[in-house]
Amino acid sequence: MPQRLLTNAKLVTLTETGDSYGLIEDGMLAIDGETIGYAGPAANLPESFADFPNENLNGRLVTPGLIDCHTHVVFGGDRAREFEMRLEGASYEQVARAGGGIVSTVKATRSASEGELLKGALSRVDALIAEGVTGIEIKSGYGLDQETELKMLRVARKVGSLRPITIRTTFLGAHAVPADYKDRADAYLSEVCLPALEAAQAEGLVDAVDGFCEGIAFSPAQIAKVFDKAVELGLPIKLHAEQLSNLGGTALAASYGALSADHLEYLDKAGVKAMASSGTVAVILPGAFYTLRETQAPPVELLRRHEVPMALATDCNPGSSPLASLLLTMNMGCTLFRMTPEEALAGVTREAAKALGLTDRGTLKAGKRADLAIWNVQHPAELSYRIGFNALEKRIFGGAA
Amino acid sequence: MPQRLLTNAKLVTLTETGDSYGLIEDGMLAIDGETIGYAGPAANLPESFADFPNENLNGRLVTPGLIDCHTHVVFGGDRAREFEMRLEGASYEQVARAGGGIVSTVKATRSASEGELLKGALSRVDALIAEGVTGIEIKSGYGLDQETELKMLRVARKVGSLRPITIRTTFLGAHAVPADYKDRADAYLSEVCLPALEAAQAEGLVDAVDGFCEGIAFSPAQIAKVFDKAVELGLPIKLHAEQLSNLGGTALAASYGALSADHLEYLDKAGVKAMASSGTVAVILPGAFYTLRETQAPPVELLRRHEVPMALATDCNPGSSPLASLLLTMNMGCTLFRMTPEEALAGVTREAAKALGLTDRGTLKAGKRADLAIWNVQHPAELSYRIGFNALEKRIFGGAA
Ligand SMILES: [Zn+2]
Ligand SMILES: [Zn+2]
Repeated sequence: MPQRLLTNAKLVTLTETGDSYGLIEDGMLAIDGETIGYAGPAANLPESFADFPNENLNGRLVTPGLIDCHTHVVFGGDRAREFEMRLEGASYEQVARAGGGIVSTVKATRSASEGELLKGALSRVDALIAEGVTGIEIKSGYGLDQETELKMLRVARKVGSLRPITIRTTFLGAHAVPADYKDRADAYLSEVCLPALEAAQAEGLVDAVDGFCEGIAFSPAQIAKVFDKAVELGLPIKLHAEQLSNLGGTALAASYGALSADHLEYLDKAGVKAMASSGTVAVILPGAFYTLRETQAPPVELLRRHEVPMALATDCNPGSSPLASLLLTMNMGCTLFRMTPEEALAGVTREAAKALGLTDRGTLKAGKRADLAIWNVQHPAELSYRIGFNALEKRIFGGAA
Repeated sequence: MPQRLLTNAKLVTLTETGDSYGLIEDGMLAIDGETIGYAGPAANLPESFADFPNENLNGRLVTPGLIDCHTHVVFGGDRAREFEMRLEGASYEQVARAGGGIVSTVKATRSASEGELLKGALSRVDALIAEGVTGIEIKSGYGLDQETELKMLRVARKVGSLRPITIRTTFLGAHAVPADYKDRADAYLSEVCLPALEAAQAEGLVDAVDGFCEGIAFSPAQIAKVFDKAVELGLPIKLHAEQLSNLGGTALAASYGALSADHLEYLDKAGVKAMASSGTVAVILPGAFYTLRETQAPPVELLRRHEVPMALATDCNPGSSPLASLLLTMNMGCTLFRMTPEEALAGVTREAAKALGLTDRGTLKAGKRADLAIWNVQHPAELSYRIGFNALEKRIFGGAA
């Protein structure tokens, strides 16, 4: 059991009772095994931690380890040529005819081996880890058949066994209607998606269930079928909702007590209120907004006013958000959506943990997991202010550097 | 003299006679001392290079080393709190009253020691080097007094002596009118800026001369005085032009045969034509556009049609573009300004070299400097497509890894 005392530390505790950021300028943090034994002013250190081996941080900033609570990092192929074709003037139709779009990712994911999927996923996970990320959610959803959905989830679990990081898996069989079920979404759900979910759950591969509620994907009534199955299996739910239009998916998700509703560009006041009363986290995804050149931003001010917790995530995926930096996501949350740097930092720590149902992390507090990021910055606002710069000094996962 | 033969390489030569990207799928590249001895199809390798020590790149992509041709990486302080105040709702006036804006950077730069400035600059330069950057332009312009302008340029030179990288310095005394010369820009130029330029040149600190032609800075007539002094000293010129309005600075710069005109959001057709006939490079700076949430994009299609070479740069600075990633800049050039990935890559290699007057680099061709970047990607479009992901395998500077 590692025991260590971090001295001369600036602690960004993000405890809700704190000052701005819950900042403690002259702080100490005691690591006691996998958990935080003490996080507070140096002056108040309990005697029981005083003789832990010391590490002087020379005034460096300590935050909770970052959590990327919405990703699709397991996938086959890449979509660089499609990106290029669009910029060379090709229409969506031309791209589709050339085999582009989500169809190409489904095809590449189905034909990839677990080893190939793992290699690609690790490259992206390693980029996140290098920025102080200690927890990542990974969704399925590029299989759209039982075999591939389960393969993706197995790869996600494997990432967690190969790297010092917490992986939470999410079943996203209701991501898109596959080509062979065109115009037969209900049949896809009953014949493929729900059986695949049951099989994945039986194999212990699922931590949560998600869907894509949108005109181009599934209706609220169809999503409700997926949620009903999740409830039956005792799994928490999440939803891609109101990204391109307002279908009321968020209110539906809230009525099921969803952990989170994600994207939310077209969310209205009723949806915000529904989230506020169900305690559902709003997961904001500026990478997709930026890449798709959207103009309608999510209602950040309304969410703030109704005290809906806001998380921020990369949405890392090969089509709409080939983004593998959570720090850049924080800057985008501020620059594009006018979140404050404090909201951005809470959004990738405290609120991201909530969005995954993880109650044991996300703040610096005695009893929480010792997942930490140590930064070479003076003030926590710098983490959101800088663009394309990684100021991480060191990452600590479960007490171990 | 290092001699090496890179085999099994995908060469992105960017030679203007080539196919798309000047791509050579089954290529070899011979490093002969500091220069490229051969870059071409494996099948055509001249015998004289055949017995150089081999390095098998296993199909990896080789590009010219990247060049960031417009930066302000030497500065004191940071502006994170100002960024935060704005997002918390403070007006520009409130920020100014709290000591924010360029004034705060000038103050912090004047009071910083050379060692402090160097430390900050190196952190940013190292971030660029980690992405395969082998050349950086660094401007003065946060001193606005002779002593500090020269101090900044000395620090820039020092960076080049401490890191394996080419540094080109640019004197930017005409960046802003300092507070003590408020409403007396002409007096500032004659009493401070031009004498400082002469002193800097006498000390061998200047490779080019730049100015900021804008309503909030200097008029074309004032900029002409700076350019006349540059001509007198035999120095090439550049200009920050048409960023926030169209004052005709670009046409002025072109009439002096400027190496580059930079920003260019408000550039009109006459300006584009002037650049085309003078051979002036358009340096596109999406980081500032993104950070300032501008809506008017530079006329990329017009520049393309008139065959004006387009470079891309970070504009790394603490106020309008705290951006230290040239790869992200490439993505922004594509996403925000609809440049193609090929234009983006040429913009940070071949055209960036032109913007600095460097004729010995920027493409992969026998006789050019062996400044190379080796990437773990399949296709050059991936370099622009990915966001916040660094696929660099290795960097080679002047033939040395
Ligand atoms: Zn998603
Ligand atoms: Zn500039």
